Amino acid sequence: MSSLYNTLKIAVLPGDGIGREVMPACLELIDAAVSQAGAPPLVFETHQAGAQHYAETGEALPAAALEACRTSDAILFGAMGWPDIRFPDGTEIIPQLDLRMEFGLFAGVRPIRWFPGLPKVLSDPRAEGIDFVLVREQTEGLFYARGRGEVLNDQEAYDTMQITRAGTERVTEFAFQLAAQRKRRGKAGTVTCVDKANVFSSMAFFRKVFDEIAAKHPELQKDYAYVDALALNMVKKPWTLDVLVTENMFGDILSDLAAGLIGGMGMAPSADIGDTHGLFQPAHGTAPDIAGKGVANPGAMFLSGAMMLDWLAVKHGDQRLADAAGLIEAAVEHTLSTKIAVPMEYGGSANCAEMTRSVIGALGAVR
Amino acid sequence: MSSLYNTLKIAVLPGDGIGREVMPACLELIDAAVSQAGAPPLVFETHQAGAQHYAETGEALPAAALEACRTSDAILFGAMGWPDIRFPDGTEIIPQLDLRMEFGLFAGVRPIRWFPGLPKVLSDPRAEGIDFVLVREQTEGLFYARGRGEVLNDQEAYDTMQITRAGTERVTEFAFQLAAQRKRRGKAGTVTCVDKANVFSSMAFFRKVFDEIAAKHPELQKDYAYVDALALNMVKKPWTLDVLVTENMFGDILSDLAAGLIGGMGMAPSADIGDTHGLFQPAHGTAPDIAGKGVANPGAMFLSGAMMLDWLAVKHGDQRLADAAGLIEAAVEHTLSTKIAVPMEYGGSANCAEMTRSVIGALGAVR
Ligand SMILES: CC(C)[C@H](C(=O)O)[C@@H](O)C(=O)O
Ligand SMILES: CC(C)[C@H](C(=O)O)[C@@H](O)C(=O)O
Repeated sequence: MSSLYNTLKIAVLPGDGIGREVMPACLELIDAAVSQAGAPPLVFETHQAGAQHYAETGEALPAAALEACRTSDAILFGAMGWPDIRFPDGTEIIPQLDLRMEFGLFAGVRPIRWFPGLPKVLSDPRAEGIDFVLVREQTEGLFYARGRGEVLNDQEAYDTMQITRAGTERVTEFAFQLAAQRKRRGKAGTVTCVDKANVFSSMAFFRKVFDEIAAKHPELQKDYAYVDALALNMVKKPWTLDVLVTENMFGDILSDLAAGLIGGMGMAPSADIGDTHGLFQPAHGTAPDIAGKGVANPGAMFLSGAMMLDWLAVKHGDQRLADAAGLIEAAVEHTLSTKIAVPMEYGGSANCAEMTRSVIGALGAVR
Repeated sequence: MSSLYNTLKIAVLPGDGIGREVMPACLELIDAAVSQAGAPPLVFETHQAGAQHYAETGEALPAAALEACRTSDAILFGAMGWPDIRFPDGTEIIPQLDLRMEFGLFAGVRPIRWFPGLPKVLSDPRAEGIDFVLVREQTEGLFYARGRGEVLNDQEAYDTMQITRAGTERVTEFAFQLAAQRKRRGKAGTVTCVDKANVFSSMAFFRKVFDEIAAKHPELQKDYAYVDALALNMVKKPWTLDVLVTENMFGDILSDLAAGLIGGMGMAPSADIGDTHGLFQPAHGTAPDIAGKGVANPGAMFLSGAMMLDWLAVKHGDQRLADAAGLIEAAVEHTLSTKIAVPMEYGGSANCAEMTRSVIGALGAVR
């Protein structure tokens, strides 16, 4: 079986807390899935980074780790941050934000889908049809203010939100491309612009640029929602949503809310995509309360791994990687729906190792 | 029966759309409740304002209406705004924001409580215990940018968020006072500071000032949450929340989300409180889709009226007004829990007039 590209190298950053538990589990699963799909093995290059590493070495994101991210075909990220470990100025150690800026990872892709075995959080039976993707702009918006904010005389503080034409164009274009893909798979093909255009001129500008991009995609639908109304509708009728595109801070809030609809972060993967790089990471954090016990649910990490394989498949035109991604997704769903193993966070007894064994075992069943 | 104050004058602004339907219903109910509680009747002074009024006269908030608000004991507000009616610069007609600034209505009080007869949105039975209050700062935060934003060369746009010490002190103090009141009624007495202190210096400042105020209330509990995590927990375990205090924009999003947990805006009242003035308004908008049909659910307007009576009771030290507020709340709950009348938005057949008749009828039953 010949391959048109060199071996794919993945920069692996397990990070802190449960990141260090779910990451090895995910690498094992990816190895198994890639092999079953007949693709050449990926090469993983693991680097330490994050709060714990900072405490040990004084560096949160060492140059070698950053270089590995830069020169790899994809970045697989666990979770970083720790309550009591901070920079001298008191700010938290969150290299994920630096990586977004460093590599221009402008599209935060946060798919939310219910499938059998997940908690039924909403009582309406239509909630079984929850299947939408939130695209969060990740290089500007209110996060532009990070490191730029001012506190004057201990009396007043200012943080400025930035919306640029280029930034809005690229993230909106990304959302429409995604909607087009989804439409081919039978989804609505609707992109909703989530903003607060009724109050802020930057948000009215965001909507205006969205409209210009939408005009280039006449085969798709566009829609608008104010962020407050969207938050309500995400609870009231999330099954009507398809693709949402929004500002950085709004996206941060809405993606956590969205994960709540499927029982929390346990099955919420994410991808941070730029023009040249892609970083894949579970939406959960380091979970200090359960870290070190081996009980974390690796589901979101697994699904993030699948997103990585899917992205690599398109980038390198290799269907086998897409097959491997499909195997992982199907195996996760099979494990949960048949209840072969039920994660502790859903009231079951399967720890991280048991979930991993079950999902790897299920790869055979779903082929 | 003697009264220590002059007749209370209420400035009434029905506004647009269903505001014009639920307001007369509410005035009728208040009259009945105040009379049954043995309090002197309130004097209502109704003024037209809003989008429709702007279309007719060129003025959204006429001087006479503003003056009535200034000189009244309280402001009762329906809903304002209309999709196609805008100012020449394209911005929406939303005088509620102007009133917040004009009268320094710094605390947006948004109570969310489940009671029998409301939709069970979440499947967890503990959701029947939802009973929390969100306090939204309403005079600064990101809304400081309204009217100040810049769009440069059609290329980039900026909006600045402001957090002041004074603004944060007063809204936090308000939240702790509220928590103290609630603690006397058996609630937890916990105030949660909802911010994004891990990323923004203005938000770290907000949290710092919150801490200073919290230190003055050692008998109450304090807690912190990042706004994204709070959005998730609002879906996952809202029954654990008591009093939340947060920045303007975050509060806007979270209060709509919160209303979703009790089936939408139909039973979500709100109060905008300042040092001298108070404005009471249902959290819903003008609902152009159903306006003019008489089918709007007046519940949130009724509960907003009760909040007004409660506020006036404290301000003027008149227990009879608190009794009237209690009667309204009990009558609304009685109507819904016994299903004497079920609002259309909850799948029933009661229109606005029928809901009003039922709730007024229930005043007798709950005394
Ligand atoms: C860790 C934190 C700074 C980060 C963010 O706010 O973007 C996280 O919440 C996320 O959603 O990726
Ligand atoms: C009408 C709108 C501008 C307003 C706001 O954003 O404050 C509303 O959503 C609210 O919550 O009162």
